[in-house]
Amino acid sequence: MGYGLYIDLLGPLAQAKPRRDFPLGAEEERCRYALERAGEGASVAVICSGDAGIYAMGALVFELLDRAPGQDGVSQAARRAEVISAPGVSALQAAAARAGAPLGHDFCAISLSDLLTPREDILRRIRAAAEGDFVIAFYNPVSKRRRTLLAEARKMLLAHRPADCPVLLAANLGRVEEQLVYRRLADLEVDEVDMLTVVLVGSSQSRLARLGEGPRMYTPRGYAKRIDREESA
Amino acid sequence: MGYGLYIDLLGPLAQAKPRRDFPLGAEEERCRYALERAGEGASVAVICSGDAGIYAMGALVFELLDRAPGQDGVSQAARRAEVISAPGVSALQAAAARAGAPLGHDFCAISLSDLLTPREDILRRIRAAAEGDFVIAFYNPVSKRRRTLLAEARKMLLAHRPADCPVLLAANLGRVEEQLVYRRLADLEVDEVDMLTVVLVGSSQSRLARLGEGPRMYTPRGYAKRIDREESA
Repeated sequence: MGYGLYIDLLGPLAQAKPRRDFPLGAEEERCRYALERAGEGASVAVICSGDAGIYAMGALVFELLDRAPGQDGVSQAARRAEVISAPGVSALQAAAARAGAPLGHDFCAISLSDLLTPREDILRRIRAAAEGDFVIAFYNPVSKRRRTLLAEARKMLLAHRPADCPVLLAANLGRVEEQLVYRRLADLEVDEVDMLTVVLVGSSQSRLARLGEGPRMYTPRGYAKRIDREESA
Repeated sequence: MGYGLYIDLLGPLAQAKPRRDFPLGAEEERCRYALERAGEGASVAVICSGDAGIYAMGALVFELLDRAPGQDGVSQAARRAEVISAPGVSALQAAAARAGAPLGHDFCAISLSDLLTPREDILRRIRAAAEGDFVIAFYNPVSKRRRTLLAEARKMLLAHRPADCPVLLAANLGRVEEQLVYRRLADLEVDEVDMLTVVLVGSSQSRLARLGEGPRMYTPRGYAKRIDREESA
């Protein structure tokens, strides 16, 4: 069970198996349904895109199991279900692999969705990531209703890293419509970003270079810096 | 080519193919050798554990390509090699999947290795992660020589999150010797951690709960908080 498009993407793996599609947004219903079927003895799979443990259904399954039945939890039978989490390739990794190796040093992931997280908590995380000089992957960077957080993030980041810090906008990773766009941090335009895009912002050390056939983005592990230090010693 | 143990782990995939083992620590030699063979027209694979783009060989390959030949770079032929990065499951994801879903909300990865990164930069990242309340995955948490950074991290984190914040020590993930140990942040002992362990520290919101057959660690996406707000509104 899962969002219909994701089950379709499974192709032959899902064929000839009973399936139950849920619309986008019906996350809790989806996990609740899966747990109740598991409680009845069925083997069920909740299908996510990316890594089920990263901004996906994994945490919600455990949260439902952790609620008492009286607090909108699942049934006693469902609470005895055995849950196995399978990791996957999250959007930040898929984007990074296409770009080169921008996650070669310390990085963080921040969701800009304020549906379930207070806006001040999101801003605090962006500020911390800016001060810590992390490579940053922004998930859910914009929505139809929410356009300002990404612009605020750009402003906060520009106070700590150079204007030409490389930014990758990656959409539809692994699909035919895949799109990779590189921008300087100072030139990042919110209107170029849609809700299906993951935005990878380099650290102050990240490089965008023309290597071989095209632009490649990577963050050095520090070897070059070590050579510099030895040479200047 | 790669570190011998990692090639062995490939099993039948690597059988009957020419291989070249390199010792641990010979990272630059490994990538340089691969690029020069590719420059001669061979198809070569550099084998890493985890995700090649996350604290692994990916960034080093691009760094070598980006150096001029006179600056200890690779040959002109090697610089024309086409490089394809393949993502994988990094240790933080493997650990998270075993634990439940601790990466269900914003997280970061920090390497505590000071071989290539100045100690003050590492401390700045830990401080930022503490202030931003990120779930944190510490890679290379200790070495034979380096024992104090993890203890300093614990101290900095305790200033921002509760003493009973859950911590997972995960070692040998996916192998027979796999080991998962849970601790309260205040009880984390550096001597329990070795260099092959990844240390996952929960955020202030992360939970360790007995669900089904054992302890599961997860970080809620925020649904519960929303219910609280609606109820108190």
